[in-house]
Amino acid sequence: MQLGVIGLGRMGGNMRERVRAAGHEVVGFDFDPTVRDVDSVAELVTRLSGPRVVWVMVPAGEPTRSVIAELSGLLGPGDLVIEGGNSRFSDDEFHSAVLGERGIGYLDCGVSGGVWGLDEGYGLMVGGDDADVARAMPIFDALTPEGKREDSFVHAGPVGAGHYAKMVHNGIEYGLMQAYAEGYELLAAEPRITAPDAVMGAWRQGTVVRSWLLDLLVAALRQDPGLSSISGYTEDSGEGRWTVEEAISHAVPVPVISAALFARFSSRQPDSPAMKAVSALRQQFGGHQVRSMEAVQS
Amino acid sequence: MQLGVIGLGRMGGNMRERVRAAGHEVVGFDFDPTVRDVDSVAELVTRLSGPRVVWVMVPAGEPTRSVIAELSGLLGPGDLVIEGGNSRFSDDEFHSAVLGERGIGYLDCGVSGGVWGLDEGYGLMVGGDDADVARAMPIFDALTPEGKREDSFVHAGPVGAGHYAKMVHNGIEYGLMQAYAEGYELLAAEPRITAPDAVMGAWRQGTVVRSWLLDLLVAALRQDPGLSSISGYTEDSGEGRWTVEEAISHAVPVPVISAALFARFSSRQPDSPAMKAVSALRQQFGGHQVRSMEAVQS
Amino acid sequence: MQLGVIGLGRMGGNMRERVRAAGHEVVGFDFDPTVRDVDSVAELVTRLSGPRVVWVMVPAGEPTRSVIAELSGLLGPGDLVIEGGNSRFSDDEFHSAVLGERGIGYLDCGVSGGVWGLDEGYGLMVGGDDADVARAMPIFDALTPEGKREDSFVHAGPVGAGHYAKMVHNGIEYGLMQAYAEGYELLAAEPRITAPDAVMGAWRQGTVVRSWLLDLLVAALRQDPGLSSISGYTEDSGEGRWTVEEAISHAVPVPVISAALFARFSSRQPDSPAMKAVSALRQQFGGHQVRSMEAVQS
Amino acid sequence: MQLGVIGLGRMGGNMRERVRAAGHEVVGFDFDPTVRDVDSVAELVTRLSGPRVVWVMVPAGEPTRSVIAELSGLLGPGDLVIEGGNSRFSDDEFHSAVLGERGIGYLDCGVSGGVWGLDEGYGLMVGGDDADVARAMPIFDALTPEGKREDSFVHAGPVGAGHYAKMVHNGIEYGLMQAYAEGYELLAAEPRITAPDAVMGAWRQGTVVRSWLLDLLVAALRQDPGLSSISGYTEDSGEGRWTVEEAISHAVPVPVISAALFARFSSRQPDSPAMKAVSALRQQFGGHQVRSMEAVQS
Repeated sequence: MQLGVIGLGRMGGNMRERVRAAGHEVVGFDFDPTVRDVDSVAELVTRLSGPRVVWVMVPAGEPTRSVIAELSGLLGPGDLVIEGGNSRFSDDEFHSAVLGERGIGYLDCGVSGGVWGLDEGYGLMVGGDDADVARAMPIFDALTPEGKREDSFVHAGPVGAGHYAKMVHNGIEYGLMQAYAEGYELLAAEPRITAPDAVMGAWRQGTVVRSWLLDLLVAALRQDPGLSSISGYTEDSGEGRWTVEEAISHAVPVPVISAALFARFSSRQPDSPAMKAVSALRQQFGGHQVRSMEAVQS
Repeated sequence: MQLGVIGLGRMGGNMRERVRAAGHEVVGFDFDPTVRDVDSVAELVTRLSGPRVVWVMVPAGEPTRSVIAELSGLLGPGDLVIEGGNSRFSDDEFHSAVLGERGIGYLDCGVSGGVWGLDEGYGLMVGGDDADVARAMPIFDALTPEGKREDSFVHAGPVGAGHYAKMVHNGIEYGLMQAYAEGYELLAAEPRITAPDAVMGAWRQGTVVRSWLLDLLVAALRQDPGLSSISGYTEDSGEGRWTVEEAISHAVPVPVISAALFARFSSRQPDSPAMKAVSALRQQFGGHQVRSMEAVQS
Repeated sequence: MQLGVIGLGRMGGNMRERVRAAGHEVVGFDFDPTVRDVDSVAELVTRLSGPRVVWVMVPAGEPTRSVIAELSGLLGPGDLVIEGGNSRFSDDEFHSAVLGERGIGYLDCGVSGGVWGLDEGYGLMVGGDDADVARAMPIFDALTPEGKREDSFVHAGPVGAGHYAKMVHNGIEYGLMQAYAEGYELLAAEPRITAPDAVMGAWRQGTVVRSWLLDLLVAALRQDPGLSSISGYTEDSGEGRWTVEEAISHAVPVPVISAALFARFSSRQPDSPAMKAVSALRQQFGGHQVRSMEAVQS
Repeated sequence: MQLGVIGLGRMGGNMRERVRAAGHEVVGFDFDPTVRDVDSVAELVTRLSGPRVVWVMVPAGEPTRSVIAELSGLLGPGDLVIEGGNSRFSDDEFHSAVLGERGIGYLDCGVSGGVWGLDEGYGLMVGGDDADVARAMPIFDALTPEGKREDSFVHAGPVGAGHYAKMVHNGIEYGLMQAYAEGYELLAAEPRITAPDAVMGAWRQGTVVRSWLLDLLVAALRQDPGLSSISGYTEDSGEGRWTVEEAISHAVPVPVISAALFARFSSRQPDSPAMKAVSALRQQFGGHQVRSMEAVQS
């Protein structure tokens, strides 16, 4: 079948390649003229025969909103938009409504797999109507790993469910990463462990903690023993925050996911205002020494 | 080569089978006469030609201590004991010293893999001297998955390092399990996710969170949709506690691993004394309603 | 001066009394005819000479919105509304704008003190313009404890700042309560502590942990030793959730406040879906026993 | 009555002064010749008429052990030692046994109040026999604030109970301090709060969160607005660690106290090894940028 793809960055570019390799015809647009097949969204739309399917793979927020708006003017009844970016699930109802007014179908699709998805296939979580899902199924099959569909694809529920599932996936990811990281720090702190990197490496097969993330961490340790070349300053990209917010709104306790999120916040603070207050308190009641800013800076 | 195995339960029995399948001669003892090859530890020792290698695979604490003591009287210089149970690493120095006085070598070996190790191979983390490790290497190779040794075996350091590494492995495991569990609870709480079990299933391939633990959780969900037949009451077996204790002693922050441990503690409390206090406080300052024990019990 | 008060529940009723005791004239309205001074908001407005000051003390959300809407039609330029309920700070800009269109001033005021405020005075945190604050100062002075104004009153910033400060106050309160509660549970679990209630009692004077909340907890323990008559089921009323949400939006780590919030969520779960998943996992990989629902229910 | 005091530092020196002010005769020894009344422990013992009461107020661990050992040789049947330092409760049984062999009584006493205790009185938590407690009661009464004894003194249980109660007291203190600190950081991060220091100040009276610790924090903020002169580097002194260890051994969930402890650990790390691992993982799977050590250092 035919597919239009808008956004040909690290993710969208690889996805175009993987869908093409499965024998489909893909027309891609991007602001970067060196990677695109057509020079405008309008041209992309004219290059597809109706009913069209267009995959939007641009950054969440304003860029996605603006592409959806543009498509709502160019596509028509019977066409279908798949929004595959990292949008907050709460954006989907709006996007679906904007397109629905014009008779255009809408699916939201959470995509996992990162830069490895091109070769290994992606995990997909989709929200929307059954009929729209059925129609796009050849594309979904092209993107997921060959084999049992139920192990890499799910129609998670109505519009929004795909991004919701992806959000929770990423929240879990925060917790998993932090669990390995805490264990690694403890191994590195213990004198009787002479080879903490090799211990992590030996967990890749046979153990209960084996996983793809562990494989990646071992790869990083083998490239850069002791991770000496990188700092602990760690960004977060939104899904972890949304996961905790949703957990709060459902009264679901998420001590692990929230702890992982807060560890990232702390990693970005050169000094903690909260700990200044704790330190000040200790000085007040116990006459404990505090470390002055001068001492720290000199 | 020859190997004596003491303890033929779920783990030891499978390990005997796997080592035998690799072509080694294994003599096993257990209190259960239906599974053992010899009727006493003494007989096991006489059935092996020196220098002997004996693997101890009995519960941590008193059972292990008692087997080590018995072996110290039966084995002699040049023999080697491998302690493969879930002992606290701090027991190893004592065991090593008891045996060392008699010239008997000692390795501690953390074993991961559970009931699946028989077929898939185990992950092994070993502490002790290089020469002892080299001598037992054929056994370690038999137990680990075929392929790259460094992916399933590590000589982690001197005596105690094997159990230390296993302890950290299990601490990480607590965190990983809790991360998936929190995500699962959130999926199940969200109305727009119509198939939370299927979402977990679809993460098995292609996604960032794929892992062996996820495979197991999906297997459990496919056997028992919604996990409706089991309760949340969850035991802990020591390693999680030791991990947090060690982290404290090294001043390593472990918010995720400790949160996972505390969640298990909470799961076993029919009512929380701490939360009674919080509830009492709310009543005191705000006149908030509390739920009386009568209301709860009726 | 004159003050109108709308909402004469536990908080509003006491505040009317305290302001009257300071010599001001207060006209109160409530849906409950047995406590009110006038029979409608309209009558309340006519009973005050302009420029009027009206304190709104009704539940957050719809009730507050609806009173503000009604007042916007009854009051006029130069009048002033003080919104003293437990509203989310983000409601204040809307309320302020609704009233501002009619030339009516607006202050948001977080009020702390609970049922004790009548006798001991309240703590007040106010957001809005300097001129409005100055005008209402006699009322604020009547409500706060006599003595140093800076110890119980703050003009925290522009509109919204009062409720924001109150929200953070309550978030801290969650953490404080949980800290005492955890300590209490530990004392009660330790056999060598023969009198855990008395230990808490002995912390009321001289110690570093002395506080008003501790006084209340001790009062509760003296009324109900061991808190045997109440359950741990604990509600939360919104501010704790908002505090964590705001912390996330500012990338401020709040491990303690969030842990206190999650403990309340857990206290309300008869069984934890997350811990079912952990328990299922343990059974899968280790053959560990799980507790079936039947065992729990029988 | 008479009292010997060994250790005249910040705590012991003030306690001597307070007990003297209550009309008792106090003989003090310290290594520092400028503060002591006698030149040796032996001289101190001879200066007291039997049966003697000696208060030991030296650092926990080796210093306390060594003083106890010395006293066991100098005191005799009927004499009484009160160990008032910050010892781990598990030391008390040993100390009690050492002295008990010589017929010397033993009480352990947790002391709270810091440098303020001289004027305000201390909070005391005592472990040991009834008869010993009764005998030392005049000293305890001299040290605690005047008024209701039950509000500042508790006989918490047998030997060890005093230090256990003090340990829990300090664990709670960690949680309280962190709760205020998190709230302070959030206030300081929110633009609409124009005066975060003043908000904390206004909580001193009337509010639910008022406490002695809050008073101290406000004092610190009034001395050093924004706490700009001190760093967040915060020590911990043992009791917080012991509290978490004990909670683990009793399977008591302490998410708040442990979070407060870990926040101190983190405050002392110039870079977090765990977060290096998280950052490395993000780079591996997503091609996310990491911050190199060079970038951080330059």
